[in-house]
Amino acid sequence: MWQARIYVTPKKGILDPQGSAVSKALGSLGFQQVSEVRVGKYLVVKLEAPGREEAERAVDQMCRRLLANPVIEDYTFEIAEFLGRVNH
Amino acid sequence: MWQARIYVTPKKGILDPQGSAVSKALGSLGFQQVSEVRVGKYLVVKLEAPGREEAERAVDQMCRRLLANPVIEDYTFEIAEFLGRVNH
Repeated sequence: MWQARIYVTPKKGILDPQGSAVSKALGSLGFQQVSEVRVGKYLVVKLEAPGREEAERAVDQMCRRLLANPVIEDYTFEIAEFLGRVNH
Repeated sequence: MWQARIYVTPKKGILDPQGSAVSKALGSLGFQQVSEVRVGKYLVVKLEAPGREEAERAVDQMCRRLLANPVIEDYTFEIAEFLGRVNH
């Protein structure tokens, strides 16, 4: 069993309205030291695969086909063997 | 200038309807090896602070007051000194 941690972020240069909204909200809560906020997704996926390479290939496909929009988003992921219960 | 990477995840045991929906969608795309998906947020925040401790304290406050809902979400973050342009 494998566990992938996937980070999907708005591409550099792409407008991030959610990030701007969070940045403004933080400012009005008194956090004026904040200069920029970008908001993305963080996904934890558990999957079966015979080995690390197969798991990586599958997760990369999932990102391309469903989890990230390649026009406006970048993605990266890390894969680790999953050996029981973890907090995530 | 500091950069915080913040991970907000649904608490263990809390229903994650977005994760269930993604899991089903992956299944119907042919990724039957997926057993569980949890969906959270990934935020990158740039902020000014005199030192690492002050930056950590500020980010922790931001998480508690705005970025995470402590009833249903957990958060963790990492802080690094930000020395110019990075891709995120």
